[in-house]
Amino acid sequence: MTARCQVAIIGAGPAGLALAHMLHLQGIESVVLECRSEEYVRARVRAGVLEQTTVDLLTDIGVADRLHREALVHNGFYLRFDRATHHLDFHALSGRHAYVYGQAEVVADLIDARHATGRPLVFEAADVSIDGTDTDHPVVEYTGPDGARHRIDADVVAGCDGFHGVTRTMMPSSTRTLTRSYPFAWLGILARTRPVTEEGMYSVHPDGLSVHSMRGPNLSRQYLQVPADTRLEDWPDARIWAELRRRSACDDHPELETGEIIERSLAPLRSVVTDRMQSGSLYLLGDAAHIVPPTGAKGLNLAISDACALSRALGIRYRTGDDSALRAYTDTVLPRIWQAQNFSWTLTSVLHRFGDDPYDWELRRATLVRWTESVAQQQALGEVYLGLPFPTSWHSDDPTSSLMAQPTL
Amino acid sequence: MTARCQVAIIGAGPAGLALAHMLHLQGIESVVLECRSEEYVRARVRAGVLEQTTVDLLTDIGVADRLHREALVHNGFYLRFDRATHHLDFHALSGRHAYVYGQAEVVADLIDARHATGRPLVFEAADVSIDGTDTDHPVVEYTGPDGARHRIDADVVAGCDGFHGVTRTMMPSSTRTLTRSYPFAWLGILARTRPVTEEGMYSVHPDGLSVHSMRGPNLSRQYLQVPADTRLEDWPDARIWAELRRRSACDDHPELETGEIIERSLAPLRSVVTDRMQSGSLYLLGDAAHIVPPTGAKGLNLAISDACALSRALGIRYRTGDDSALRAYTDTVLPRIWQAQNFSWTLTSVLHRFGDDPYDWELRRATLVRWTESVAQQQALGEVYLGLPFPTSWHSDDPTSSLMAQPTL
Repeated sequence: MTARCQVAIIGAGPAGLALAHMLHLQGIESVVLECRSEEYVRARVRAGVLEQTTVDLLTDIGVADRLHREALVHNGFYLRFDRATHHLDFHALSGRHAYVYGQAEVVADLIDARHATGRPLVFEAADVSIDGTDTDHPVVEYTGPDGARHRIDADVVAGCDGFHGVTRTMMPSSTRTLTRSYPFAWLGILARTRPVTEEGMYSVHPDGLSVHSMRGPNLSRQYLQVPADTRLEDWPDARIWAELRRRSACDDHPELETGEIIERSLAPLRSVVTDRMQSGSLYLLGDAAHIVPPTGAKGLNLAISDACALSRALGIRYRTGDDSALRAYTDTVLPRIWQAQNFSWTLTSVLHRFGDDPYDWELRRATLVRWTESVAQQQALGEVYLGLPFPTSWHSDDPTSSLMAQPTL
Repeated sequence: MTARCQVAIIGAGPAGLALAHMLHLQGIESVVLECRSEEYVRARVRAGVLEQTTVDLLTDIGVADRLHREALVHNGFYLRFDRATHHLDFHALSGRHAYVYGQAEVVADLIDARHATGRPLVFEAADVSIDGTDTDHPVVEYTGPDGARHRIDADVVAGCDGFHGVTRTMMPSSTRTLTRSYPFAWLGILARTRPVTEEGMYSVHPDGLSVHSMRGPNLSRQYLQVPADTRLEDWPDARIWAELRRRSACDDHPELETGEIIERSLAPLRSVVTDRMQSGSLYLLGDAAHIVPPTGAKGLNLAISDACALSRALGIRYRTGDDSALRAYTDTVLPRIWQAQNFSWTLTSVLHRFGDDPYDWELRRATLVRWTESVAQQQALGEVYLGLPFPTSWHSDDPTSSLMAQPTL
């Protein structure tokens, strides 16, 4: 079976689903293909902190009703070091917030919005093949859940299939992939315990970072910096709790509560940027083009930012025939991506132990002191944490989007 | 010949001379010993940028009349990258300034002030020996310019003799020296050319940093980042000018003027902190205890800050007999020292090329973009560049010094 659409979107994560919805609102037809099942995608646990900028966009495109009812609204985060706890209150300095709302919830809202439009969203699309992205008429083929082979003739392919997807492997070999790896990983647990603080906390200890975040009044997600080559079986519950307690010991809060660990995982930290995010009629968005470490919670927000810029560029092209914004896509989105990379790297390098150098530890402590003592420094951090303006509006007929015009701190 | 004084000060640099004057103003007797000649010390070219905090202190102790007549008053500095020039105007954000006034001038003013008091300041003091610093009655001996051997019985020895002096070698072996070295050096020239900008400029290029500063309307001091193992003879004039021009090439200013090079030097960059700055009756100040790279111009300012804290602690001891402030000297001064180390390291790491990693270059560019685009970030930088408050007042009878009470940005 052959179908024709303007934009073939590969991947039903936040980038692909948000793009599909923004295109729909501009009257542009798309098909979204996802290799996983709808149940899997709805349940996939990932990031959980949304920038104010992202929430403003989701509100603007009409998919944030449940978010505004259910999200935890945060003013900033806590830093603990030298046995004392400090709150960085970015909201007090800017009037803006961060929102704790799981990526699975954002995805569910976007799936519901897509279903409501009746436009094509295909789960369990197998054996996806993409051809002709060096031309103006790329062809995407896949085997549907019906077992039949389908063909889509499109103008543009949007690669939203993540770091392990196929679209990033289709870029020309001259594309540079800039990377940074870290000599540690995060061991994460989900536990039935009362969270230490009502907002997230980074607890910085000479022996390494621990991270404490809230998922509910009696449900917490906590992380430990561990060596990159550690194994989960080396970390029985008692060791995890002892280490979390030791690293978060302080003089101004009760000791960390322990409880049943209902989930555990091990995640490497890495930074990756593909310095070319388009080739012919193929455009990469989100994790397909760049990865940040979890510190700073930028990944999901960058995916939405990319979708926003590509949506507007496609809007202009279909409305006016002018493809200059489309040609400028990479140059448009890369500066904000590098700001997020820089923020994630700064948080990662200040909060983690990198080695035995005592000079390094004192430098990191001095940075933490500055972050807690200087209002200007907190404003500067808050500007990026709560979200720099998106590079463009999401729609073609508003050259000065309300999202771009928002004041920085 | 034997003399008796309260404080024996080793070294007539900014730390020693400022301490001597602040002690004098509190009625505390000191002797200053310096191994070099007065002419040498007055001509020794070193740092040249004073924080507002330092200028306020020098004004407060009455040695800043000439400074206020002759210093160049700067609002901030320039950053050039990607062929564009940006001005960071910290004054506009804070009402405070930086002052370009050579260390030799500060030293000359302090020497003049010392001479005016008639209190002892001995140049060309040879074969200085220091004993008994593990007791309350240390003894300093030296051979004077008269050829005679002299002995000073003191209560306290102040080590102000710099990184290559003797006092830092007298600390217990358990003292930790925390260091960071850099894989590059600064090749500096003094040239008869018109400076590029009226305030200092860091020009950041993928191939390395160049620094441009003004010494007069037709006199400039410029630096090139060079490999740590480079040799001056590898850098004929033509190569220096070609590299300075290439690294500072831009689209918004005329090309760099060349001219006669009247002085050249090669300086390594390093960061050093002695984590214990006192032992028995010996106290270390300034470069004897810590070194910063020239980026950020913190060295001289830290020396004055240390002198300030020790002056007050000695003032309290002689006025009331309470030596708790003296015992707390290291803990009092180290936090500000680490802030300066952190600032110097931040500037050094953002402005210099460290290697071939393209990810590193893009991170550094992202930081530079943030510094030029974010007012909050500029305020945060300006707070430290123009001088954090000193840890204490310089005199014993003012627990809340005007210098401490000054508003931060």
